[in-house]
Amino acid sequence: MKTTIAKLSEHVGEEVTIGAWLRNKRSSGKIAFLQLRDGTGFVQGVVVKSDVPEEVFQTAKNMTQETSLYVTGKVVEDSRSSFGYEIQVSNVEVIHAATDYPITPKEHGTEFLMDNRHLWLRSQKQHAVMKIRNEIIRATYEYFHENGYTKIDPPILTGSSAEGTTELFHTKYFEEEAYLSQSGQLYMEAAAMAFNKVFSFGPTFRAEKSKTRRHLIEFWMIEPEMAFVEHAESLEIQENYISHLVASVLKNCKLDLEILGRDTAKLAKVTAPFPRITYDKAIELLKEKGFDDIEWGEDFGAPHETAIAESFDKPVFITHYPAAIKAFYMKPDPNREDVVLCADLIAPEGYGEIIGGSQRIDDLELMEKRYEEHNLTSDAYNWYLELRKYGSVPHSGFGLGLERTVAWLSGVEHVRETIPFPRLLNRLYP
Amino acid sequence: MKTTIAKLSEHVGEEVTIGAWLRNKRSSGKIAFLQLRDGTGFVQGVVVKSDVPEEVFQTAKNMTQETSLYVTGKVVEDSRSSFGYEIQVSNVEVIHAATDYPITPKEHGTEFLMDNRHLWLRSQKQHAVMKIRNEIIRATYEYFHENGYTKIDPPILTGSSAEGTTELFHTKYFEEEAYLSQSGQLYMEAAAMAFNKVFSFGPTFRAEKSKTRRHLIEFWMIEPEMAFVEHAESLEIQENYISHLVASVLKNCKLDLEILGRDTAKLAKVTAPFPRITYDKAIELLKEKGFDDIEWGEDFGAPHETAIAESFDKPVFITHYPAAIKAFYMKPDPNREDVVLCADLIAPEGYGEIIGGSQRIDDLELMEKRYEEHNLTSDAYNWYLELRKYGSVPHSGFGLGLERTVAWLSGVEHVRETIPFPRLLNRLYP
Ligand SMILES: [Mg+2]
Ligand SMILES: [Mg+2]
Repeated sequence: MKTTIAKLSEHVGEEVTIGAWLRNKRSSGKIAFLQLRDGTGFVQGVVVKSDVPEEVFQTAKNMTQETSLYVTGKVVEDSRSSFGYEIQVSNVEVIHAATDYPITPKEHGTEFLMDNRHLWLRSQKQHAVMKIRNEIIRATYEYFHENGYTKIDPPILTGSSAEGTTELFHTKYFEEEAYLSQSGQLYMEAAAMAFNKVFSFGPTFRAEKSKTRRHLIEFWMIEPEMAFVEHAESLEIQENYISHLVASVLKNCKLDLEILGRDTAKLAKVTAPFPRITYDKAIELLKEKGFDDIEWGEDFGAPHETAIAESFDKPVFITHYPAAIKAFYMKPDPNREDVVLCADLIAPEGYGEIIGGSQRIDDLELMEKRYEEHNLTSDAYNWYLELRKYGSVPHSGFGLGLERTVAWLSGVEHVRETIPFPRLLNRLYP
Repeated sequence: MKTTIAKLSEHVGEEVTIGAWLRNKRSSGKIAFLQLRDGTGFVQGVVVKSDVPEEVFQTAKNMTQETSLYVTGKVVEDSRSSFGYEIQVSNVEVIHAATDYPITPKEHGTEFLMDNRHLWLRSQKQHAVMKIRNEIIRATYEYFHENGYTKIDPPILTGSSAEGTTELFHTKYFEEEAYLSQSGQLYMEAAAMAFNKVFSFGPTFRAEKSKTRRHLIEFWMIEPEMAFVEHAESLEIQENYISHLVASVLKNCKLDLEILGRDTAKLAKVTAPFPRITYDKAIELLKEKGFDDIEWGEDFGAPHETAIAESFDKPVFITHYPAAIKAFYMKPDPNREDVVLCADLIAPEGYGEIIGGSQRIDDLELMEKRYEEHNLTSDAYNWYLELRKYGSVPHSGFGLGLERTVAWLSGVEHVRETIPFPRLLNRLYP
């Protein structure tokens, strides 16, 4: 019976065959322990010299790291192993003998591992991070589809950019000039007027020369947009969605979290509702904590976000930022024009901002004023203005950065380990 | 109770409020029929003059197309309507009065509609196509996640391209030159060695100056790749996946298919297994049908694919193409070196190729030979070669074009209507 490691629990007591790779082994004259992986999981294969033909034992004993093989044997429960099962090997058939696999069990430098990212992904920790990423993706589709959202794919190639062009990648588009999108939001607003509740989930691009542990050049964003939803309801949607992600990872990635040594008690606290503080209060809080490098009207840096997050054991919404430091399309607070109906969601434990969102301006005249202030007079932006012309409605939306969320839930330091093939300043390979 | 049109069935007999837009109306002196949409569905609101305050009736009667409003009323079943329900309106509150909405119930030209794509998406047929697209996306994640696949996102920005650079978009990547990916497959092969069964689902780009009804510049692809899976098993996976998509759309998009006038009897026949014919047989079949413009060794054009598809009422796999007209990484048939273990899946009804796939070369020496033949000697391709060096295993994969699949299942003629904001030669707006 051909199967995979992930399905061994269905075959206890049976003889199975799995395709696998050898991660590591140890052996004596009488027994060989094979550490196997097949991509779906990890398991130990035990080869007892006296139970198998001599050439099978010799083959098992002499296999090199990352050799591919078909292993046949009986599945038994093994309560000592975190994998839960073991294979009592009766046969080993080498598919391809690997020699000099570059990533050995010893320590390697980050640049070396990044150069070998196509192989590094096979290692246990990188595998665990990608399984958590996969679960976040799965749970995202589950959440939005179960809640009646339509997936809408905004274009990547755009002929215009509302947020300045210096941090954008350019490309020639036949006779025109195009840019790679760094947010699909404006398109998602058009889609919300057609489909009510929509979400996008795709790659975005920022040609930013920054080298922090929170930045990637190419990263994935989830951007929901909801018609007839105002600021307060949007925050409720956000906290419910994040709670769903955390609960899904806790439930379905137990072994991955264990492999990564993640403190799951901290994640278990992340249940809706989340605390909300205004930007005003956040500034006060920072002053109390002794920060004298920030004044009302300035944006927070990573140290500020971390200090604010430390006061809470859940993600915290910072709301009502000054209009001047936020995007042109955010709706002013009707009670106070100098702040906008927006919120950033700051993750605990120093992982920084994972969501930015707001209610959008729905008034045509105010949007026309913003167009003038921001010089958006080119025909390229007509279509976005028209959303306020033909049946404008209150609407809100937000953007979640996938890689920062993976970093937070996995507990990894740097976002470069949260995407299969990271694109960084000076890294376009592999 | 605030709700949406999609949820009216849960509120029969109750008074509800929905946010909506006016699609169309007709009225007499005593009654007004409002055709409403809210993005989740369509419903008729009935306003009886004698049942509501005079100003409510006047407001309802005078509303213009695409005006946004809150409608309050009682939900009643209506078996005459394909939507199933009707609202007996007690109040209407205009949110924003639209004037001169450009897309009227009369006929408009395609270029005009494409220029107004941000609004055209609100119309009933475009809405239906996007709901079918959404269902195909949902069912894709469902299929692959339920079958143990890990979602892996290959990079869009790449420093190299194995398939020539003329049809690629270029961009400056800081000090380097980068390309927009037209397939993530090579990366997915690396991922399959780490995760066993993987799939990608993201945008791809082809700077092709073609203007056919089957081509987009920016389109979405699903690219699964499976370790330890050989050609025959890969075809079974493909037919099961496609059958799942078709069954999901038939089950969950009934109204959308009806709005589009789709012949669902034809779709209902699409159940696994699908017929398989070799390239050799396909050439014979074309000769029998009188085609004299194709010889063994040449690739099929759209008319050939359509003619072959006409012989079957299900999608058909054409297998074992000549190696010379297929990609360098496809595995030769061990029994016959001039053909490869590949298949294209041709949709019925003239919708053309929706899948291309193959078993991949796993032998290092043969791949090195291909590298020489195709001049892939740059260091940029080392990593891909290394997959054959460290525990190479038999593996197969395929790529499904999302938009062609949407076109087929929706029954729309041109792929430009199958993506929210199409990118075409000369179309980068909106
Ligand atoms: Mg911020
Ligand atoms: Mg073809």
